[in-house]
Amino acid sequence: MNGDTGKNYLKEYIKSIKPILNEYLVMEEEKAKDVGWLPSNAVKHFNDLVAEGKGIRGCLVCLGYEANGGKDLKSIYDTSTFVELFHSGVLVHDDFMDRDNIRRGVETLNSVYKKYGEKINVKTDYTHYGNAMAVSLGDAALFMSWEKLLSGNFSAERLMAAGKLYAKYVIRLAHGQMLDITSGADVDISEKEILQILWTKSGEYTSLMPMMVGATLANEVDAEQYTAIENYARCFGWAFQIQDDYLGIFGEEAETKKPITSDLREGKNTLFMYHLRKLGNKDQLEFQKAVLGKEDVSKEEVYKMRNILRDSGTMDHVLKMGWDYVNEGKKYIKGITSDTRLQEVFESLLIFMMERTK
Amino acid sequence: MNGDTGKNYLKEYIKSIKPILNEYLVMEEEKAKDVGWLPSNAVKHFNDLVAEGKGIRGCLVCLGYEANGGKDLKSIYDTSTFVELFHSGVLVHDDFMDRDNIRRGVETLNSVYKKYGEKINVKTDYTHYGNAMAVSLGDAALFMSWEKLLSGNFSAERLMAAGKLYAKYVIRLAHGQMLDITSGADVDISEKEILQILWTKSGEYTSLMPMMVGATLANEVDAEQYTAIENYARCFGWAFQIQDDYLGIFGEEAETKKPITSDLREGKNTLFMYHLRKLGNKDQLEFQKAVLGKEDVSKEEVYKMRNILRDSGTMDHVLKMGWDYVNEGKKYIKGITSDTRLQEVFESLLIFMMERTK
Repeated sequence: MNGDTGKNYLKEYIKSIKPILNEYLVMEEEKAKDVGWLPSNAVKHFNDLVAEGKGIRGCLVCLGYEANGGKDLKSIYDTSTFVELFHSGVLVHDDFMDRDNIRRGVETLNSVYKKYGEKINVKTDYTHYGNAMAVSLGDAALFMSWEKLLSGNFSAERLMAAGKLYAKYVIRLAHGQMLDITSGADVDISEKEILQILWTKSGEYTSLMPMMVGATLANEVDAEQYTAIENYARCFGWAFQIQDDYLGIFGEEAETKKPITSDLREGKNTLFMYHLRKLGNKDQLEFQKAVLGKEDVSKEEVYKMRNILRDSGTMDHVLKMGWDYVNEGKKYIKGITSDTRLQEVFESLLIFMMERTK
Repeated sequence: MNGDTGKNYLKEYIKSIKPILNEYLVMEEEKAKDVGWLPSNAVKHFNDLVAEGKGIRGCLVCLGYEANGGKDLKSIYDTSTFVELFHSGVLVHDDFMDRDNIRRGVETLNSVYKKYGEKINVKTDYTHYGNAMAVSLGDAALFMSWEKLLSGNFSAERLMAAGKLYAKYVIRLAHGQMLDITSGADVDISEKEILQILWTKSGEYTSLMPMMVGATLANEVDAEQYTAIENYARCFGWAFQIQDDYLGIFGEEAETKKPITSDLREGKNTLFMYHLRKLGNKDQLEFQKAVLGKEDVSKEEVYKMRNILRDSGTMDHVLKMGWDYVNEGKKYIKGITSDTRLQEVFESLLIFMMERTK
């Protein structure tokens, strides 16, 4: 088995939800005009970002729903878009935190409004103004996700149960984000701690939260199925994040549509950086120390880091970890669903997380 | 009638909810330890901020609930705290945006973590790190408010209806916030536009949203009652905001527990600044232009601004606007409730909005 079935399921999913998201956000853009041109314009920029989403989280809402016996695909496609609104909203906050200018090939909100602030000569520092605008738009997006979820065509009981889970996991994500933006300072961090950060700041809300929300929208989730989902999701989340960090340095910007310099500049303590500290020689470690967290890190320095990660065996070691998670995750699929068609999608999508180039 | 009855209702309310909020946040602090010490510590700082809340919004949830026939006071007291969690979360974002260091007499999260970043020598600009930490904690708080609301002891239908309203109004608030942080640049702004900004960035979520959520938790709200609530809430929101802007410049820091320099430094286009442009002489206008948005505005400059606002008649003019809203708002109370005890609270609380000194 390879990642094609998963890739195609995802492709089909994205095709179906793009018009739903666009219709919703065009309506929000219209509604925002009631407040003013500026917020309406910000929603328009946000729509551009949402339109480029990969749809992984929304797709997992649908899979979780189907795996727990849900049959109303039209309704779950519609409601699953809540998580895409949420994820894009979080990215808007994330881009401010990581000081990024490009995301998904689209100019980030903080960058758009930094320039706008300069143009209208706003009475505060332009970068700060751009950041404040991005945080406000992100806040709006977080509540749009709630509006979308609670308007879903499901019983009030199911929506309530789903909403409680949603809130619970996102509180943990926000906590994990704090560790993530802090971890760059800590060279004594353990592998276990790094995995914990990757899980709470990304893996959990990328995999476990959507699957559990989807499953819960279909029916109550029993303890056995919950354990299987949790185990699968953990493997999914880590494989996803390892490939994400891999693409952050080794990816083609034309594909990933984000700058390869960002993770090094922000001093992110990825598994690659951790294992380089174990596997690198003296020269390599000196270079790592000099470049991690460097304000004006260059593409040439990223290229050199790529070579170091290859030569030291770090790249192979961490990618193998990702594939080990894929292989472990496969084992839990039978506990999630007995439907062989869905089992195939779960397995292939897991593989696709490590095969993807964007 | 004066503001005493309202003040006492509010006092009683705050006394009842403080232990509820503290119990919830101590539990959240414990849960956050599962992610790490750092986020748990951030929740602790957040609890310090929440503990100093004035409780106006939560109190209006209860009033809206009672006015629409709700009888389960124990449950509404508990659930109403969602809006206090939300409001404090928004203030954390707001303090980053306005670059404030003190709020409610407590050091702001952005300031706490700027210092912490310096202490641990985090690999990014310390101010930026403090801001990113504050935004993350604020995001967690927004979702805590949802957790609290959706866990309420009300039927799933009522909670769903309340949640939809909550989401709708907060999206508008975030849009209004964008206008607020932008408006400083615009000296050609009209009074109508300023009132619109005050309403969407503050008044609406301070008065209309809590009252409507409370009323909805009790029963469906009919069109007539909705109109009465909306009209009362509009007057309440504007009176509240006028006094807020008044206290921003004329308040005693020992009472308001926030710096009097902040609004001028951030170049806020309050009604006071607007009417000074109409009523001030040449010298006064030159001073206003020089000081509005000035990075290092001093207390002496605030004192001079106070004198200018007094001498030009601006202070009296705008405060009269506030009292006019109070008098208009009274007229709508009979459309909200026929309960004379509640009518008295509604009226007195409205008066108290202009009488309050913090």
